[in-house]
Amino acid sequence: MAAEMVNPRSDNASDSGEGADGVTDGEPFDPAFALHRGGKMAVQATVPVRDRDDLSLAYTPGVAKVCSAIAEQPELVHDYTWKSQVVAVVTDGSAVLGLGDIGPEASLPVMEGKAILFKQFGGVDAVPIALDCRDVDEIVETVVRLAPSFGGVNLEDISAPRCFEIERKLQERVDIPIFHDDQHGTAVVTLAALRNAAKLTDRALGQLRAVISGAGAAGVAIARILTEAGIGDVAVCDRKGVVSTDREDLTEVKRELAGFTNKAGLTGSLEAAMDGADVFIGVSGGTVPEEAVAKMAPGAFIFAMANPNPEIHPEVAHQHAAVVATGRSDFPNQINNVLAFPGIFAGALQVRASRITEGMKLAAAEALASVVADELSADKVIPSPFDERVAPAVTAAVAAAARAEGVARR
Amino acid sequence: MAAEMVNPRSDNASDSGEGADGVTDGEPFDPAFALHRGGKMAVQATVPVRDRDDLSLAYTPGVAKVCSAIAEQPELVHDYTWKSQVVAVVTDGSAVLGLGDIGPEASLPVMEGKAILFKQFGGVDAVPIALDCRDVDEIVETVVRLAPSFGGVNLEDISAPRCFEIERKLQERVDIPIFHDDQHGTAVVTLAALRNAAKLTDRALGQLRAVISGAGAAGVAIARILTEAGIGDVAVCDRKGVVSTDREDLTEVKRELAGFTNKAGLTGSLEAAMDGADVFIGVSGGTVPEEAVAKMAPGAFIFAMANPNPEIHPEVAHQHAAVVATGRSDFPNQINNVLAFPGIFAGALQVRASRITEGMKLAAAEALASVVADELSADKVIPSPFDERVAPAVTAAVAAAARAEGVARR
Repeated sequence: MAAEMVNPRSDNASDSGEGADGVTDGEPFDPAFALHRGGKMAVQATVPVRDRDDLSLAYTPGVAKVCSAIAEQPELVHDYTWKSQVVAVVTDGSAVLGLGDIGPEASLPVMEGKAILFKQFGGVDAVPIALDCRDVDEIVETVVRLAPSFGGVNLEDISAPRCFEIERKLQERVDIPIFHDDQHGTAVVTLAALRNAAKLTDRALGQLRAVISGAGAAGVAIARILTEAGIGDVAVCDRKGVVSTDREDLTEVKRELAGFTNKAGLTGSLEAAMDGADVFIGVSGGTVPEEAVAKMAPGAFIFAMANPNPEIHPEVAHQHAAVVATGRSDFPNQINNVLAFPGIFAGALQVRASRITEGMKLAAAEALASVVADELSADKVIPSPFDERVAPAVTAAVAAAARAEGVARR
Repeated sequence: MAAEMVNPRSDNASDSGEGADGVTDGEPFDPAFALHRGGKMAVQATVPVRDRDDLSLAYTPGVAKVCSAIAEQPELVHDYTWKSQVVAVVTDGSAVLGLGDIGPEASLPVMEGKAILFKQFGGVDAVPIALDCRDVDEIVETVVRLAPSFGGVNLEDISAPRCFEIERKLQERVDIPIFHDDQHGTAVVTLAALRNAAKLTDRALGQLRAVISGAGAAGVAIARILTEAGIGDVAVCDRKGVVSTDREDLTEVKRELAGFTNKAGLTGSLEAAMDGADVFIGVSGGTVPEEAVAKMAPGAFIFAMANPNPEIHPEVAHQHAAVVATGRSDFPNQINNVLAFPGIFAGALQVRASRITEGMKLAAAEALASVVADELSADKVIPSPFDERVAPAVTAAVAAAARAEGVARR
């Protein structure tokens, strides 16, 4: 094979020119730049192409029989191509990490990172697709056209409220799973942590009143999954305070949110809503004053997930709460989406699910929580991202839920 | 790493259900189906993601610095992502192999095959993208939107004349190489074989009159490259005979073709055009009667490339010609695109070419021919697809030509 001789990557890696030290303001060597040189992923053949006989099976003439069979029986595409193993990680680069709207090219390192996490944690192949378009219908049309080549689509880092509309429209148009991880991945992991926190402190979800700071992609999805899971009450706050039916400045998504949250009929500020609340969930950034934290109910749970600066610093949170979680890897109880999305897609692909239902997400959260159910402590309501039990547990639960919900195709 | 445990591929491979023996009409086991089960390719991480430190470099928070750098200096995307190593293999499934219009899903095994050939022969990563749309402008728009994620686009198995318009429009819209392999790959390899056949028989290209049977994607591109390379004359024939300026039934592409070919002003049938011709190039299918073959000039070259049935069977051809080539691997002198496209893209990507120019294609043909220049015989005017000297030679020549033509970005 000639591959080794002309691999452009090896050329890249040895080339100097513009480079790591050219872009880091006086930092002579940054390990993140060094690691990213040449990208973080590659494609590999899983069948041999060493000689004429190999070629005649993997390519012409042998491949023609396989193509003809799929043309006659379209569902065979799942058996004889990588479709059922491969997910498109699709973004428009409009809401990347904490960086905001940096465009498709600059978002690619995150999408590649996501792709290799899919592989390493879920055994799922994934391809970064950063789109050069912003219009909701253009993004939807593009993904519809790409759908034959992929077993699922992970939407990533697309700004709210467009992300909601894109996901909904795509789910109506294609018969493969569409999953906006910033919404549902975060929601699944948050619910898992909350389940275990409740179990640890011997409370039922129905007893708990939660306040979510942030009504973007994550906030909306967390409110939804907590409601489905039977939380006592949940109030979602945006910059103007509690999202409530009496507000007249709400987007469509927030109006819908107001309809199924806030049974208590709260109005006013986040701080006011936190008075007596059992659970604080931060997906907004900003800082919550300690006075507000101090007024939460005894034995509260504080999940302050903003990165790199949690809305409530863990040291402060621990003075007022029974369980504290963050989005950071250097504190206990990291709410990390990698605990969810690899297994969710692996499970959905395994049974060739046509979509990812609410029931599959709830099952994922339950499976994730159950991994550490017998070893719970205030510092361990959620498994480590590197706990090898996580992906198989989530995969199996999601596959079973897909079958139970009638969306599995095998 | 949890990857091994939950790989959906391993699950696929062991599953029975519908399968190889279910679709092959009584054939109990077909090696092509067995080989294709689960697909032919996978994605792999090229950086470690084993622990928290790895994750903090390859993903958050380390990746944010890399994203910010690209946002500030867009050309860094080539250094710090896989963009400059990865090609999209794009089709709409409208003209697949000899099978015709079988749609995007059924075309995927061919696109995967192409992708692994890119990798094995050129060290180039490639991703199969079979699009669910047919309109020229929709395909163009879709590829434009995908362009940020890829270093180049290999158009594949798109029917003529749409393939010409799609390629032209894309070249106007994006700054990465767009290359329709059915046209240019075939043309490059054909020119290389013709160069060596002329060298072997001590003739100059300018002395030769060629007849091409077939005015589709390959025929048009071969006519073009032979003209650029200085062939004496070339006449292209479609089903109605020689494409000539006096015909009134020509498409736009064929009118253009008539303008720069057929200096001799031939009209009438393919058979008539072959009378006294030095070169026959078949890219049409069908059969040419032996009487017509017998009337070619002494010492003719016959490249009958239809698969699986050459327009002129090699046994017949050898009775009337000095050099015979086919598209088949079981005869000498196989005109196989895999001799060209991996090296052409590897060379273009290596220097981050913004396009693939005519000069780069000519350089590729010359490099390909030169690989066997010192070992020429009637049965060896073109290297074997497995000759390891091919891809490096083509890569280097194409990269140098890109620099010479001013389309290289490094």
